Amino acid sequence: MFGFDYSSTTRVVFGRAAEEKAGLLLQEYGAKRVLIHYGGGSCVRSGLLGRVTASLEAAGIAHCELGGVVPNPHLGKVREGIALGTEQQIDFILAIGGGSVIDSSKAIAYGLAEPELDVWELFEGKRPAKAALPVASVLTISAAGSETSNGCVITNEETGEKRAYNDNLGRPVFAIMNPELTMSLPDYQTQSGCTDIMMHTMERYFTQGGNMEVTDGIAESLLRTVMKYAPVLREDPNNYKARAEIMWAGSLSHNDLTGCGNDGGDFACHQLEHELGGMFDVTHGAGLAALWPTWARYVYRDCLPRFTRFAVNVMGVDGGSFASDGSGSAGGSGSADSDEAIALDGIARMEAFFRKIGMPVTIRELGVEPTEEQILEMAASCARASGELLGSAKKLTVEDMAEIYRLAM
Amino acid sequence: MFGFDYSSTTRVVFGRAAEEKAGLLLQEYGAKRVLIHYGGGSCVRSGLLGRVTASLEAAGIAHCELGGVVPNPHLGKVREGIALGTEQQIDFILAIGGGSVIDSSKAIAYGLAEPELDVWELFEGKRPAKAALPVASVLTISAAGSETSNGCVITNEETGEKRAYNDNLGRPVFAIMNPELTMSLPDYQTQSGCTDIMMHTMERYFTQGGNMEVTDGIAESLLRTVMKYAPVLREDPNNYKARAEIMWAGSLSHNDLTGCGNDGGDFACHQLEHELGGMFDVTHGAGLAALWPTWARYVYRDCLPRFTRFAVNVMGVDGGSFASDGSGSAGGSGSADSDEAIALDGIARMEAFFRKIGMPVTIRELGVEPTEEQILEMAASCARASGELLGSAKKLTVEDMAEIYRLAM
Repeated sequence: MFGFDYSSTTRVVFGRAAEEKAGLLLQEYGAKRVLIHYGGGSCVRSGLLGRVTASLEAAGIAHCELGGVVPNPHLGKVREGIALGTEQQIDFILAIGGGSVIDSSKAIAYGLAEPELDVWELFEGKRPAKAALPVASVLTISAAGSETSNGCVITNEETGEKRAYNDNLGRPVFAIMNPELTMSLPDYQTQSGCTDIMMHTMERYFTQGGNMEVTDGIAESLLRTVMKYAPVLREDPNNYKARAEIMWAGSLSHNDLTGCGNDGGDFACHQLEHELGGMFDVTHGAGLAALWPTWARYVYRDCLPRFTRFAVNVMGVDGGSFASDGSGSAGGSGSADSDEAIALDGIARMEAFFRKIGMPVTIRELGVEPTEEQILEMAASCARASGELLGSAKKLTVEDMAEIYRLAM
Repeated sequence: MFGFDYSSTTRVVFGRAAEEKAGLLLQEYGAKRVLIHYGGGSCVRSGLLGRVTASLEAAGIAHCELGGVVPNPHLGKVREGIALGTEQQIDFILAIGGGSVIDSSKAIAYGLAEPELDVWELFEGKRPAKAALPVASVLTISAAGSETSNGCVITNEETGEKRAYNDNLGRPVFAIMNPELTMSLPDYQTQSGCTDIMMHTMERYFTQGGNMEVTDGIAESLLRTVMKYAPVLREDPNNYKARAEIMWAGSLSHNDLTGCGNDGGDFACHQLEHELGGMFDVTHGAGLAALWPTWARYVYRDCLPRFTRFAVNVMGVDGGSFASDGSGSAGGSGSADSDEAIALDGIARMEAFFRKIGMPVTIRELGVEPTEEQILEMAASCARASGELLGSAKKLTVEDMAEIYRLAM
């Protein structure tokens, strides 16, 4: 068990019609001139943007708007937001959307708080931010957890690099979550979101030692809940309870709660996917599903107690005499062979689950086919971003990374 | 499922030697003149107070000290703290202790921020606070959860009334948690703390409808974790892992996470115990254990799906064809009889668990014997404090309250 420094300060206002509280909430936090940042036209067409702006107007809050954020959000849009926010003397940013829009809003918030900063330098790791404008969101996709996390991921569309920056300064002040707002999503987006949510917990779960029972119990229960309700939404996308369970699980999976006591997590799949996403612009959650089974089979022997525990407590594999806290050996005979069999069964079941919810489990199924040259380029870029060795379950070299891409094809 | 407005802003700095960071943390939050508030002499004798003051001095932070907080902390000490803090121009309060000291600190923080306020008016519900000085803690007992909660409970020693006041203004800025600091506690205090932790989750669990699967999963896993490690500490009080698991479970059990989506919780046992504690000065957790089995048997029929689910998912009762999410009937035959049997088995197992960890399960075992007159007085006071009807699992009248006290004798 490791010590930890945990805080998750974002206030969550959850429930039906929650977006109508936007104006009063912004007023409560002292906002005077708000930049409303959003993605495509769906939030205009659905009337959501209109309801939110009406709420701001009723509260006497000035605002301007900037749409057009794309998935894997671009640095160019961030720079556009910084220019507009400067011109309009913005003091608060309200994102309407999912992870891409919220991430873009956080990056704009750093840029507006420090006029002398070239915001990409944060993502290059050149220096940390000194300040950020306050950010809040009206969440429309359950996936990235950005609504309560301290992280953001931006793609430099000129270089193809996709980079993350984490800083508590950027953690949103509040998040408005109405599960109904996610009902109109295409199923592929819903299920990619569910995969991303699960992966935020799993990235923190497959680590070397240090795990707390409290944290494991929360992580396992979040995973079981998402795995119960994701298939429900394939059949019944307007199921409020299922939407709500997944929405709240999404926030709790990435606000660091599921990392307390561990070594900071693995996050190899996320890094490997960031390269794929930077090069091919795939849907993030789907990219994670395409990589995870291969990654898991590549690393599980180095992290066997965690994969065995996962198989029994999350995937329902019969663990024989396995103690559910992972303290004992998994097999009835306690042999390493049976532990390996249990772990592999757990991985196979998760792979089957991804298929069941319509996710790809290989890179080709994702619809892209990187060349060997592109694989080497992604691995090299990933190694640069991660400081050579990547992950916790198994420390991956640049050769390991390339091999995982190849095996995942 | 109900909507909710959740925030838990307290930063947690967790691990060995964490108390040595007190000075730097206070500096980070701008503290200049700190009131160090504590209980008995044990934190002086153990050297903890000395380590903390050394850490403040190294960070150049002025401080004064006020000890002598007692369990079921007194309004008189709060007033003493307000007088001292005013005289010393304090800008930050650092509690060293458990719930009593932190609660006393919060009450002082309200009083110092509003010189015109008679602080007891908050507890009488006459008006809410307008401000509070920042509070932080070095936690030495895992129990009350006050280190991350927005609540505090103060006893007016002149009238015998014990009253709670909840307000996000009073939520601590940070909590320093070193599990080692709890190792010297007498077992009775440790186990009373574990009971209090469990009860904070159970009070939010036994409610009428509205529960979310995400919340239930977290609640059940917190309960299982505490029930696993509390007995470990009876045999091995210096077990770091057990101390750490319980300490972190204690904070998460009372920072509202286990209440998201429900109707606000039941809290009848807490209210009934507050009256006992106000009149007889019993240990809070032990008082809860003395009341819970009687309360549970008094109300379970009105809240059967929750008691059945609890029996199966937390107490390990064989639920037959019971769906673990509580969606189905518990018995193989689905009859109400078998649901009742399962629920009662769960209650009996929890009662047995309380006995196993040395807790009283009746009021007499608690060492006090209220007269009928005192019972009526406690019930009347409880009804006044709760606005006549108390609880969610079953709405209790003043007659119900008196009957529960009688049956719990």
